[in-house]
Amino acid sequence: MKNKGQNIVKIHPNERIDDLHRNGYKIIQNPKKFCFGMDAVLLSGFVKVLPGEQVVDLGTGTGIIPILLEAKSKGDLFTGLEIQKESADMAKRSVILNNIEKRVKIIIGDIKNSSNIFKKNSIDVITCNPPYMTANHGLTNSDESKAVARHEILCTLKEIIRETSLILKPGGRFYMVHRPFRLVEILNTLSEYKLEPKRMRMVHPFIDKEPNMVLIECVKGGKSMLKVEAPLIVYKEVNVYTDEIYDIYGY
Amino acid sequence: MKNKGQNIVKIHPNERIDDLHRNGYKIIQNPKKFCFGMDAVLLSGFVKVLPGEQVVDLGTGTGIIPILLEAKSKGDLFTGLEIQKESADMAKRSVILNNIEKRVKIIIGDIKNSSNIFKKNSIDVITCNPPYMTANHGLTNSDESKAVARHEILCTLKEIIRETSLILKPGGRFYMVHRPFRLVEILNTLSEYKLEPKRMRMVHPFIDKEPNMVLIECVKGGKSMLKVEAPLIVYKEVNVYTDEIYDIYGY
Repeated sequence: MKNKGQNIVKIHPNERIDDLHRNGYKIIQNPKKFCFGMDAVLLSGFVKVLPGEQVVDLGTGTGIIPILLEAKSKGDLFTGLEIQKESADMAKRSVILNNIEKRVKIIIGDIKNSSNIFKKNSIDVITCNPPYMTANHGLTNSDESKAVARHEILCTLKEIIRETSLILKPGGRFYMVHRPFRLVEILNTLSEYKLEPKRMRMVHPFIDKEPNMVLIECVKGGKSMLKVEAPLIVYKEVNVYTDEIYDIYGY
Repeated sequence: MKNKGQNIVKIHPNERIDDLHRNGYKIIQNPKKFCFGMDAVLLSGFVKVLPGEQVVDLGTGTGIIPILLEAKSKGDLFTGLEIQKESADMAKRSVILNNIEKRVKIIIGDIKNSSNIFKKNSIDVITCNPPYMTANHGLTNSDESKAVARHEILCTLKEIIRETSLILKPGGRFYMVHRPFRLVEILNTLSEYKLEPKRMRMVHPFIDKEPNMVLIECVKGGKSMLKVEAPLIVYKEVNVYTDEIYDIYGY
């Protein structure tokens, strides 16, 4: 199909095309597989990419993060690494659909092997929306692509952090979204691999509720000094987003 | 002087008596020295003491935390450890003034030496409102008692955590208030000494501002699983506390 200013790509059965409210960009997803959530959108709003920077998204799924960051920033190149061929294929077709092949590349590969795929100490910015649950935590999802996206089946938090530290430039930045219940382990592991947490923001569904996400920015080799930001509140009342959430979504 | 239901104690020049809005309790402070802040009050609101428990407050100053916890809980014994004789003397007189000598003890001693003062693995609950700044961070205060309360001159965070871990019972709880900018170091050091952070709450002056305090509950030998609570907001508008702050202060 052909959209205004966009290329023709094949859409498979069960797939759909969603509007991203950024530059007219769209994304191909399969609702029977894993679809991107608010996590990825909030992470893309938290990430800062400077003009000319090289960005790698580890476990990119259908490519939501590099596509949004390409739209929002003047970064030079956005590379999404994805191990699941079906997701990577949707991501590649979305990149073609949006006509952004020059700035967004999708690579099929294993996060655990990132330091063999990318040059060491070479990347300016790394982003990751990892699986939140350990492999044994709770029931894993019956659909394999959902299970891999949600549980540490193919890759652990420690492996992601280890590989990030290897390929990030000294002074380079790592951005991650995760669940607050694992915060102690997250901060300990980041410190262990010299990724110093510099900025953190909790995401609360409502102002009087516990956070269900945490956004973290680290600097490789940075000095110890964390800036915790004001809470990010999702809803001002039931079914009504706060203005900040509408801004991040681009409405 | 004699208050209703209270004992007679000597009040020195420059000292004043403040009302604590709990059980009619009062506290002796010297405004030229260090006076307790909102930090101590919020920590006392965050701490949970079960009936019969033994509580130790490390670096108790004028005894604000054990006095408030005695008023609020059914704990058995509240011991405040303080190295500065003048503060400890005020704390002791406040305990007599409030007629709570049976449940609140003030000991003069060094936090670094806690594991020689208290029996190892013996305490149910430990609380601490430590100095927030490292010894070299920023200008230290010209008054010695203020400087010692604010800067790690006599004792570091690591020493407090090490001694806490030694004297706390397995399964015992440690409660601390600190500054968010040191959160990474705090969580790493707690983990190093097997004090697992289980509950954390950020305190924000206003809903749209960064937190300026963090409250943390740890369990000695606890399993890794952090509960981050809803933000605690101090002001709903300029000069007007939120209802929750009024509740904690006992108004």
